[in-house]
Amino acid sequence: MSDATNDLILKRILDAPRAAIWRCWTEPELLRQWFCPKPWYVSDSRMELWPGGEVMTVMNGPDGERVENLGVMLEVVPGERLIFTDAFEPGWRPAGRPFMAASVTLADAGDGQTHYEARAMHWTPEVKAEHEAMGFHVGWGIAADQLEVLARKL
Amino acid sequence: MSDATNDLILKRILDAPRAAIWRCWTEPELLRQWFCPKPWYVSDSRMELWPGGEVMTVMNGPDGERVENLGVMLEVVPGERLIFTDAFEPGWRPAGRPFMAASVTLADAGDGQTHYEARAMHWTPEVKAEHEAMGFHVGWGIAADQLEVLARKL
Repeated sequence: MSDATNDLILKRILDAPRAAIWRCWTEPELLRQWFCPKPWYVSDSRMELWPGGEVMTVMNGPDGERVENLGVMLEVVPGERLIFTDAFEPGWRPAGRPFMAASVTLADAGDGQTHYEARAMHWTPEVKAEHEAMGFHVGWGIAADQLEVLARKL
Repeated sequence: MSDATNDLILKRILDAPRAAIWRCWTEPELLRQWFCPKPWYVSDSRMELWPGGEVMTVMNGPDGERVENLGVMLEVVPGERLIFTDAFEPGWRPAGRPFMAASVTLADAGDGQTHYEARAMHWTPEVKAEHEAMGFHVGWGIAADQLEVLARKL
């Protein structure tokens, strides 16, 4: 299956430069400031920018919830593209139930703006539907708003 | 899950030098000569030696069976280690039902011999059991015999 049937996609034009958005995704100190829809927050994160590198976030909820996501980086094109997945843990060990591979793609839109695409790619229609029901569009949309606000300040 | 519970492992000392075994795995013209237990044979293969590179074999059976395996390379340490998976197609698209990641690890054993480990890593105990029932140990064992014969001639 090489079509996009099982993808969920968020596309935006963000009012911030591509380099600033790249920094917000790849520098953990910045990522922690926008990655979760508030009042959730990220208490720890790692983002190793090479194939097989560790990608990790710990998200915390207002009632003490704690969700740790661990995965690996698959591809890095500096300033343009990140792809990572939870299907593997570092060392390329198959991990749990593969949920998604996610790609982030940036392109200049002129006037200091950026075409922003965040794509969640799933193995099955069932997992795609589950992700959609978990609030993909609202959640990733709020995160993109927070990302834009932060990137404009850099 | 970062233990090896869902792995199937073949370990051998092969009577051939490490560099020759590496060539047999990474040069498609050589891989085709040993990769399938005969009378099955490989009619086409590709092995791109970088993360995200295409890994493909077409295996053919004596009664006209044709099995195409497509995946991507995850890690390459020249002369020492290959890891690849069918969980993705080139372009890092999630593909079908993830069956396994496979690693091949080589180390010098002295006297022109090589420690050879072929490991199939699965996401679930069910898929591991399925792979075992498909004849992992016999099939990969015969293939290792054929690999050794070819590598000794190089």
